Amino acid sequence: MVFITRREQFSAAHRLFKNNWDDEKNLEVFGQCSNPNWHGHNYVLFITVKGDVNPETGFVVNIKKLSAIIRESIISKLDHKNINIDVDFMRGKLASTEYLAISIWEQLEASITELGIQLHCVKLMETENNYIEYYGN
Amino acid sequence: MVFITRREQFSAAHRLFKNNWDDEKNLEVFGQCSNPNWHGHNYVLFITVKGDVNPETGFVVNIKKLSAIIRESIISKLDHKNINIDVDFMRGKLASTEYLAISIWEQLEASITELGIQLHCVKLMETENNYIEYYGN
Amino acid sequence: MVFITRREQFSAAHRLFKNNWDDEKNLEVFGQCSNPNWHGHNYVLFITVKGDVNPETGFVVNIKKLSAIIRESIISKLDHKNINIDVDFMRGKLASTEYLAISIWEQLEASITELGIQLHCVKLMETENNYIEYYGN
Amino acid sequence: MVFITRREQFSAAHRLFKNNWDDEKNLEVFGQCSNPNWHGHNYVLFITVKGDVNPETGFVVNIKKLSAIIRESIISKLDHKNINIDVDFMRGKLASTEYLAISIWEQLEASITELGIQLHCVKLMETENNYIEYYGN
Amino acid sequence: MVFITRREQFSAAHRLFKNNWDDEKNLEVFGQCSNPNWHGHNYVLFITVKGDVNPETGFVVNIKKLSAIIRESIISKLDHKNINIDVDFMRGKLASTEYLAISIWEQLEASITELGIQLHCVKLMETENNYIEYYGN
Amino acid sequence: MVFITRREQFSAAHRLFKNNWDDEKNLEVFGQCSNPNWHGHNYVLFITVKGDVNPETGFVVNIKKLSAIIRESIISKLDHKNINIDVDFMRGKLASTEYLAISIWEQLEASITELGIQLHCVKLMETENNYIEYYGN
Repeated sequence: MVFITRREQFSAAHRLFKNNWDDEKNLEVFGQCSNPNWHGHNYVLFITVKGDVNPETGFVVNIKKLSAIIRESIISKLDHKNINIDVDFMRGKLASTEYLAISIWEQLEASITELGIQLHCVKLMETENNYIEYYGN
Repeated sequence: MVFITRREQFSAAHRLFKNNWDDEKNLEVFGQCSNPNWHGHNYVLFITVKGDVNPETGFVVNIKKLSAIIRESIISKLDHKNINIDVDFMRGKLASTEYLAISIWEQLEASITELGIQLHCVKLMETENNYIEYYGN
Repeated sequence: MVFITRREQFSAAHRLFKNNWDDEKNLEVFGQCSNPNWHGHNYVLFITVKGDVNPETGFVVNIKKLSAIIRESIISKLDHKNINIDVDFMRGKLASTEYLAISIWEQLEASITELGIQLHCVKLMETENNYIEYYGN
Repeated sequence: MVFITRREQFSAAHRLFKNNWDDEKNLEVFGQCSNPNWHGHNYVLFITVKGDVNPETGFVVNIKKLSAIIRESIISKLDHKNINIDVDFMRGKLASTEYLAISIWEQLEASITELGIQLHCVKLMETENNYIEYYGN
Repeated sequence: MVFITRREQFSAAHRLFKNNWDDEKNLEVFGQCSNPNWHGHNYVLFITVKGDVNPETGFVVNIKKLSAIIRESIISKLDHKNINIDVDFMRGKLASTEYLAISIWEQLEASITELGIQLHCVKLMETENNYIEYYGN
Repeated sequence: MVFITRREQFSAAHRLFKNNWDDEKNLEVFGQCSNPNWHGHNYVLFITVKGDVNPETGFVVNIKKLSAIIRESIISKLDHKNINIDVDFMRGKLASTEYLAISIWEQLEASITELGIQLHCVKLMETENNYIEYYGN
């Protein structure tokens, strides 16, 4: 079993807030992350998959194919977008890094399994100081 | 003459567009940066000042004082904000990295001159691949 | 189960040596790390905690709260300090990165458990080439 | 049990291809990585070992000793070399990052076990966007 | 006058040697960089241009256009290539980082001038420890 | 004229204080940097030299020779040392990054001129957020 990781990036706006809370309550819980006019990040995404090495190619998976899947199903939907408004798979969810990482896992899992390998970890950095890792449940 | 640089960061949303252009024209010129629902970045800011070393302290300037000025006049206004909407010194300007760097220079110059040193360069990174440097005019 | 990591930093002096060894023996075992006049590092600390996502907030833990705990119980005691002399929780211990990481775990564990989550990993980088990870015992 | 990681680097040329495939087939499977005139990378290698802390030294292992082993058995054979041609332990293997990581594991395992500790992970970065991790089988 | 920089990367093989020197003399002058079977690097390229800000767009230059020029005239010729053999604009030159940076300048200068701006600096990193800057002559 | 830069590193302890000031005054001016028991940093040093490219070698200077000079005259004196106590060329000076950068310039200038090239810049990073650049006077 060998693990291979691909790094991708996207720049997006978001806001942490709950509709059924007023601005004061949102500010109390989410701090400046609840700014009604949004803020944003350069998110850095690490997708780790695992599998056996194919002796024909020396690859667990062709990294270009893996990158293409991530770009098509994740990056194209998030890059230069508003996570709360523009992203179909985030609709009705809090736009926290936690839920974003879990949702990215859900978006990717089937396509990666189809390649004959397994999704192992979604690591999502919001800033150089904060990141989330999700290994499925 | 010695140069000292302080790195600071802020996470903000923005959008590139002109009011007097329609969405199609904005998209043509600004690409996905014109997304009406905003996007955002982790901006990295490097402020370089220059001056003689004070033989009493060994400092060109106390870096904590320099950092405090940058945080008060720049970071507190940009961090977790929308550059197009929330930032007084960007009102009526295109929210490009170029104009943002020039505006940061204009905001900082007087306070830095008051310290008996000179502002030398504002370097502003929008992503790890793109950055602007402005040395005044 | 989701993992969240916070990066913090501190700059400290230390020295590797044993009181009951002479300088020659210390030099033989610890090399230049035993220099009697100390040396120092910019340590980079990654604290990883794990837990379920709170559906009210979208958070495993409020990262500001986590950061505040790390700063109060760890960074304030280590930053701009001498690890061998100034740090209560390192008294009587060898100031190796290994023991420092274990001691940071011991300092943090209770406060993190009180938040209803679990401490998962203390990662401590001494330089860009050397780091320790400790997952408890 | 504590984990300690050493980062080392090497710059090498390689090519992905199979002798029994023609250039067209190699190009189809390996893309530009099959360029007959080679290309190259600055590989970054992270070797993680694990063990108990020696109370005499505060070390899992003397990091200088670990670094010396990695340099002698791995870096000296790969740095400024052609992976397909010059490296004894890669002879007859596809020069993929996967096989290179596995081979580095096989080269290191015995010498590390002799130190009374265990090899835990070989992490090998080919670029800042792609890396392999191998934990043995 | 504002400066804007674009970072791009390429992975290439090369060798430092002179045809009219024997292997021994090449080894003496160029060390392991003269390995007859090549070695390689992940080169990081920073292209800095300067000009006035266009008040219509807020840009010195559209960074996508700048990136497209660099990719077409530089990256596509160097990435996954052998600098000594495959690159038309390096033919007959020593494949040192110095000559590579100067040659990249010569390749880019005209296309950048055509955009109504000026090429300011070619910065080329061979490793994280070594880089060249060229500002034209 | 081409510029070449070499990155080197050293880990050292230091303290900012003046002998003729009491602890209170030192604390007021230098903050925690005046801690009597020292603190330390991983300093990162960038030495930039400039000159013409030698057509025999393609080099401004052999980077190994440049590195050897920096290591012999600078790194060996600072690495794993106390800047205030152990370093001959810092004796009697405030151990600020400013004075350290200027002193490194003074130590290096003659040896670099002897190579037929010129010292252009000493850049010294104390942390990832603070650095000094000195270009001579």
